[in-house]
Formats: sequence, C-alpha cells, structure tokens
Amino acid sequence: MAPAAYTADELAQRFGLRLHGDGAVRVDGVGTLARAGASQLAFLANPKYRGQLAQSQAGIVVMREDDANGYERTAIIARDPYAAFARISALFEPRPARDAGVHASAVIDPSASVDASAHIGPFVSIGARSRVEAGAVIGAGTVIGEDCVVGAGSELIARVTLVARVRLGQRVVIHPGAVLGAAGFGLAMEAGRWLNVPQLGGVVVGDDCEIGANTCIDRGAIEDTVLEEDVRLDNLIQIGHNVVIGAHTAIAGCAAVAGSARIGRYCLIGGAAGVVGHLEICDKVVVTAMSLVTSSIREPGEYSSGTPLMDNRSWRKNAARFKQLDALARRIGGRGTSD
Amino acid sequence: MAPAAYTADELAQRFGLRLHGDGAVRVDGVGTLARAGASQLAFLANPKYRGQLAQSQAGIVVMREDDANGYERTAIIARDPYAAFARISALFEPRPARDAGVHASAVIDPSASVDASAHIGPFVSIGARSRVEAGAVIGAGTVIGEDCVVGAGSELIARVTLVARVRLGQRVVIHPGAVLGAAGFGLAMEAGRWLNVPQLGGVVVGDDCEIGANTCIDRGAIEDTVLEEDVRLDNLIQIGHNVVIGAHTAIAGCAAVAGSARIGRYCLIGGAAGVVGHLEICDKVVVTAMSLVTSSIREPGEYSSGTPLMDNRSWRKNAARFKQLDALARRIGGRGTSD
Amino acid sequence: MAPAAYTADELAQRFGLRLHGDGAVRVDGVGTLARAGASQLAFLANPKYRGQLAQSQAGIVVMREDDANGYERTAIIARDPYAAFARISALFEPRPARDAGVHASAVIDPSASVDASAHIGPFVSIGARSRVEAGAVIGAGTVIGEDCVVGAGSELIARVTLVARVRLGQRVVIHPGAVLGAAGFGLAMEAGRWLNVPQLGGVVVGDDCEIGANTCIDRGAIEDTVLEEDVRLDNLIQIGHNVVIGAHTAIAGCAAVAGSARIGRYCLIGGAAGVVGHLEICDKVVVTAMSLVTSSIREPGEYSSGTPLMDNRSWRKNAARFKQLDALARRIGGRGTSD
Repeated sequence: MAPAAYTADELAQRFGLRLHGDGAVRVDGVGTLARAGASQLAFLANPKYRGQLAQSQAGIVVMREDDANGYERTAIIARDPYAAFARISALFEPRPARDAGVHASAVIDPSASVDASAHIGPFVSIGARSRVEAGAVIGAGTVIGEDCVVGAGSELIARVTLVARVRLGQRVVIHPGAVLGAAGFGLAMEAGRWLNVPQLGGVVVGDDCEIGANTCIDRGAIEDTVLEEDVRLDNLIQIGHNVVIGAHTAIAGCAAVAGSARIGRYCLIGGAAGVVGHLEICDKVVVTAMSLVTSSIREPGEYSSGTPLMDNRSWRKNAARFKQLDALARRIGGRGTSD
Repeated sequence: MAPAAYTADELAQRFGLRLHGDGAVRVDGVGTLARAGASQLAFLANPKYRGQLAQSQAGIVVMREDDANGYERTAIIARDPYAAFARISALFEPRPARDAGVHASAVIDPSASVDASAHIGPFVSIGARSRVEAGAVIGAGTVIGEDCVVGAGSELIARVTLVARVRLGQRVVIHPGAVLGAAGFGLAMEAGRWLNVPQLGGVVVGDDCEIGANTCIDRGAIEDTVLEEDVRLDNLIQIGHNVVIGAHTAIAGCAAVAGSARIGRYCLIGGAAGVVGHLEICDKVVVTAMSLVTSSIREPGEYSSGTPLMDNRSWRKNAARFKQLDALARRIGGRGTSD
Repeated sequence: MAPAAYTADELAQRFGLRLHGDGAVRVDGVGTLARAGASQLAFLANPKYRGQLAQSQAGIVVMREDDANGYERTAIIARDPYAAFARISALFEPRPARDAGVHASAVIDPSASVDASAHIGPFVSIGARSRVEAGAVIGAGTVIGEDCVVGAGSELIARVTLVARVRLGQRVVIHPGAVLGAAGFGLAMEAGRWLNVPQLGGVVVGDDCEIGANTCIDRGAIEDTVLEEDVRLDNLIQIGHNVVIGAHTAIAGCAAVAGSARIGRYCLIGGAAGVVGHLEICDKVVVTAMSLVTSSIREPGEYSSGTPLMDNRSWRKNAARFKQLDALARRIGGRGTSD
C-alpha cells in the first residue's frame, strides 16, 4: 500500500493556511528540517533552527510569515508552525485497524455493556456493571474491573488496568501498563501493625485526557480522585488517592503527586518532580524538573528546588558546606531562621 | 441490590465501641465530615477539622471522647477514630466476587498445584512447580513463573508478574502491574562489554505485606530479596536485588532502594526517596520525601536532604551560589571539609 | 532432578582458568563467601571481604592470584573473579523450558511472521507486519503491535508491550511490564487546549541490550528513539522520544531521560537520576544517584547534584539558609552570579 501523498496546494487548502511557492510540490511523509528529503514535509518553529533552512531539502516547510521572506522553495505559512505541523503530520500517521467487535477470547461479565461500535481486543476482561461506550477501543490484554465506564471514542492502547470505579470521559487515551483505580495507600497503625483503610472512592477522568505508559492513578479513599478535562500525564507518574488535577495541566514523566494534593489548571509539572500531599497549587504554576513542592503555591509562576550539577569533586566540597550553612550564616551575622 | 445499612447501635456493639446519642440512626455508607449526609458515617481524628463538626450533616461521626462533649447528634467514641473508621468502613467496601475455581482460559503447568478454594481468573498462566494455596485470588492476566508460592489468602489483583522463585506469605496483596522476581541488575564489565551476573536467588515476602501497582522487586543474586511481615509498599517503587526490608516498614510511591540495602523495622520512607545500595538503616527511621540516603543510618529519627522550593528567579541566584559555597566558607574562615 | 554438579577441575578447564588446590572438590551451586557450604562455589573480588576467606566453608572460591597465596583450600584463579564467577554461576542457573512453537491461545495477525524455532507463550498477541526471528522467546501476556521486529535470540520475559515500530536487535532481553514504542509526550498548545503531535517514528534497540521491568521507551516523533548495542537499563526508567543512548551505557532504576537527549557510550547513570531534554552527554560520564543533568556534559568524569542527608532538625535550619545564600554571599563580598 503506497503511503498517502498530498500537494502543498491540497495541504494549504485543507488546513486553511497560506501557500508560499510552488503548490504542486507533493509530500508523502515528514522529516526534520535538517534531514527531510524532497518528498517530506518539515517545520521551522524555533528560531534557533532558522540557519538550517537554507540547506534543507524538505519538499515543504511549515513556517511563520517572517521566516518565508526571501525563501525560494515551497512553504506553508502558519502563525503557529508547530501546531500546524502537528495537524498536518496526522495525515501521515499509520492508524492500526481497530474494527468494531469483540474478540472471541475476551471475557465479559454478563452485567457489563459494550457498545456495538466498540473494539474489544484479545485477552480483554471486563467486570461486573462496567460499560464501554461507542467507538471506544480496548486493546489487547486490558483488564477492566467492576463499575467502570470507558467513554465514547476513548482508547486503551493495550494492557491497561482499570481496577474498580474508574469513569473515563470521551476521547481519553491510556497507554500500556497504566493502572487506574488501584486502592490508595491508606494505612492506620494499630497495636503495632498496619491496618488498611478501605478505599471506597473511584477515579474520574475528564474528556480528552491522556495517561502515559505505566502511570498509576489510585482511587479515592472516600471521595474520588479527579482529573479534569484535557489533562496530560506522561509515563511512570504516580497520582495518589483523592488528588484533583485541573483542566489542561500537563505532568512530565516520573513525577509523583501524593494523596489529596490539588493542582490547578494550566500547570506544567516537570519530570520527576514531587508534590507532597494535602496541599494546593494554584492555576498556571510551572514546577521545574525534580523539584519538590512541600507547601501550597498561591501565585502563578515558575518554581524550583535542588542544586546545580557539578563535577563530583567540587560537589563533595560544596555539599559538605551545606551542612554548615546555618553556622556560617550566623557567623556573618545572618538573621536566624527558626530560633 | 440495596447497600448494607447499619444502626449506630449495631456498629458500636460490633466493634466494641461506646455509643453517644441516638443508637437508632442508620447509615449505609461513608463520607467526609464536610460532605457526609444523614445516611453516612464520617470521622473526626485530626483536631484541625474539629470546626467542621458543628455543620456536619453526617448521620454518625466516629470521634474521641473529648470531641463528643456537648455534641448533640450521634457519635461513636473511639480512642483512635481513624483506625476505628477504617474497621467500620470496611463494612461498606464493595468486594467483587472471586469464586473458587480456575477460569477455563487459564494455563497451568501440570507440575503446579492450585488449592481447590483458590480463584484463578482469566488469562492467568502458572509455571512449573508453583503453588497457589487456600483461598488465594489470582486476578486476570497474572503471570506466575516457575517455583513460586502464593500463600493462603493472598490476592494478586490483576496483571501481576511473579517471574521465578517468588514465595509470598499469607494474606499478601499485590496490585496490578507489579513485577516480583525479575532478574536483578547485576553486571560485570569484561573486555568492554557487559556480562550478566546470573541472579540465582528469589524473593521472599512475609505475611500481610502489600505491594503497590507497577512496583518492582528484583530477585536476589545469590541469596534472596526479603520483605519481612506487614511491609507496605506503595506504587512504582523499585526494590533492588538482595534488599532486606524489616517488618512493618512502609515506603511511599516512586521510592527506590538499591541492591543489598537493609532497611529496619517500623521505618517510613517518603515518596520518591532513594536509598543507595549496600548500606543499613536501623529501625524507626523516617526519611522525608525525595531525600537520598547515601550512608548507613544508625540512630532512629527523621532524616532529610534537598533544598526548599523557591520562585525560579530566586532559586537560580541561590543555586548558583551553591557552586561557590566552599570558597565562600573559606573566605569567612570556615573549617575545610576534605583537605 | 538432581542439580548439575562440577568438580573444580572441570570448571577450571571449561573456563580456561587456573586451579589452586584439590581439583576433585565438587560443587552444585553458589553462595556468598560468608555463607557458602562445602558444595557451593563463592567468589572474592572486593578486598574488603578478604577477611571472610579464612572462615569461609565454600567448596571452591574464585579469587585473584594474590589472594590465593597461602590459601589451603580449593580456589579457581581469575584476573577478574567477579566476571569469572558470573560465567561459572550461569551453569547453575535454572533455565525454564521455552520450547519452539506457538501456544494455542496466541493471536497472531496473518501478515506477521514467526520463525519456527521461536517460542510464543500463552495470551500473546502479535500485530500486522511484525516479525519474530529465530530462537526468540515471547513470554506470556506479551503484546506486540504493528511493524515490530524481535531479533534472533531475543527474549521478552512476560507481559511486555511493543506498541508499534519497535525493532529489537539480537539477544535483547526485556523484563516484564516494559513498554516500548508508546507515543512520546509531544504536545502543542492551541487555543487553550493541548493538541497531540503525532509520533511517527519508532524505537530501535541494538544487539545485546537489556531493558528492565516496567521501564518505558517512547517512540520518536519524526525520527527514531535509539539504543545502541549492549545498553543496559534497569527497572522503572523513562526514556523519552528521540533519545539516543550510546553503546555499553548502563542506567540504574527510576532514572528519567527526557526527549531528544543524547547520552554517549560507556556512561553510567545512577538510580533516580534525571536528564533534561535536548542536551548531550559525552562518552564515559558517570552521573551519581538522584542528580539532575540540566545542561550538556562535554568532559568525561563523575557528576553530581543534591545535598547531603541530615537529621531533619539540622536540615531545616540549613535548608532555610539556602534561600538566603545569594544575600549572604553578597554580604561577604562574593561576586554576583547573574546581575
């Protein structure tokens, strides 16, 4: 099967963008500005790569109006070239067929319901009272427990687990290995032994959320753990019970959010960052990679913790001094911090 | 099916607690103090929420004797309201049916043994010489390799992997995606290439342990990796080969314990904390979130590393100074640290 | 079945090593120097354990020539005792049978190809146009999507996912729960909502790589994510899209490498370390545990960030001073850092 191919004219017209240069140029795939060939589409968004433009062999380049001044080959002009590239390149994305129907090997509880337009792959099990809505795709090896909902158009790529009481909105995408609705880490110490606190809540995931591979979202203790719409979680993230994450917030890989934390809307949480439990982060907060949030953040802005990377010998010297920091500060007359 | 409902009288009697107020009040679920309705049970443990009591609509509130003075509605009096709530709320926990028997799709090696009272779900495979004891539950998609034991009453929720030589005690709970008994990360460099060091040990998990979703516990190189009884591991934790974790220790999500570390009893390891290999942590040590333990800890107590969160502009200035810390300290006459 | 047993003579001869003492001593397993019995083989590599040698009951000890001076029991002499032990102990490793053939429950797309000598376990699904080469082992519950290749002699232990366009070289080992080829975390913000950037690349894994349990390697956005040969990744690691990792590099558990970072050859990245995206690390760099690499590293050597662990009371005082560090430095006349 030959890949789909499109002329610059066709692309400009389909996406409502302006054509610059020869509209007959045809592309059948994408490439980076540095390496794309004559039949590939590339983009220029970051000014730091502008120098690559003159040498680029790309058949079509998506770029801003300014960058096209004097450009003698074919361009498609966009205010936001990266977003335009994202939309155009979707034309070239291979989409595996996921026909409607239930694979013969799937095990579905009689009390569950599966829309006739949904796809249920091999080795899927679906528990009591769960519901899979129109057009949803449940990939191979997925386990859906009791009282779950997979909203219309959602896709569980493969080997996802929804343990219990997980309600997904529409067009939610969940990558392999993710576990939603496991019992939260609720423990009481009683007579020298741990006692489990039953986790009676569920997980609610809003429309258009995406959840990365091997990410975990625990179900709530009493109320639900909540992701509002369009939340984006990368891989290997831990979301504790009763966390609430506001709409359009994105969290990078390996971050951890402890129980009952509330994160606002339009936040960006960096990779391997941590958020301690029972605090609030307001809207539009950026937390840089591997920073730890230990108290509530009430002002939008960018926040960080940690120390810079150094060669190990220098680091050892400076790190040792960190232990003397309060004493050093006192010696030079610094104000005491806690006493 | 109507949910179970209990009167305050019934609950007080069943759990050996004292009733305060009208024993005929009936509840069929739980709620938070702030949001529970008249048919729900709530609890008051943390004094910071005492102010919510007057407005609470909860049918029954579990609380300490002191807090009940003057309280005009129905309460159940407990010395430890949180633990009492945990026990009572278990009455309202939906427990999916896991009937005894082996699902038709399961693949069980002829040399394996499964107790007749155990539940084996769909798409489970059990390898040679492994044993599943009385009342154990092996959830859908679980893979049990060779020479494993699942002790009586243990539950592997779904999609768990026991690779080889994993022996679980009784009443162990393992959440989805957890991997126990994978080969530890043992490498020798030989002539410029890595050589695997065979991992001949196993994993031993004591009674009443609980292991979170997507957590990994590697098998030992020569001897076993060991969790003593009642150890609680949250999600996405890495436990390296030959680690030993003492009884009643709890570790929060995303923590990492490197090979051959020994952690004592009744320790609390915070989220995303790290423990370097080949060291010892004594009993009753608390390590705060995202701290790194790089040498043995011989005294009980609370330990931390890291720096506080700041706005990024301030952080950049201070972090840059961290690189000069040894030089600054010398300038003000601080004692040298390593030379 | 009795375990295999070997005399010291046989072992020395098989591995081309020199025998010291009685060649008739026979062993059928391995142990640590401290605990091995008369029928077990141990090793002495780290001089710090030399003191254990005199009391060791091990039947055979692998050691350096020097350490054998005056040793009166049986030894096998090796320049690198740890590597020699690794090779010898492989004789005692139980290798589960993985016969050639496809389990009856497996679901294989008609356009996929599976070599007749490969083993396909229960509940495996293999998607369109994927290929499993000679002698490969695909363990239970593994999901292989479209356009993947599993090279000759590779082993996917169990419950692995190759999502799409993942090409594994020869003798690659992947532990349970690992996810390769999931869509990278590529997002553009458009009109206040996230827009997915299609992830059209794949993942290429070189010969002899090993990938730990629950580790994730995302597929590239335009070009591929690449692991060169003999790369070793521990458990729970996140490798972002378009990362390139040089040959013979090893990364410890819970590390995170963000998109488009390039890591050189023979690097050692410590546990829970982080590497920010779009930077380069040259060959032979060591990054210590939980350090964060935020800019390119151009010189081989060891690098660190973070602060030392302290008792929490001391840490609080010193950490509070970290916030005043720039002000303190100015007071004693330090050079400003950014203005």
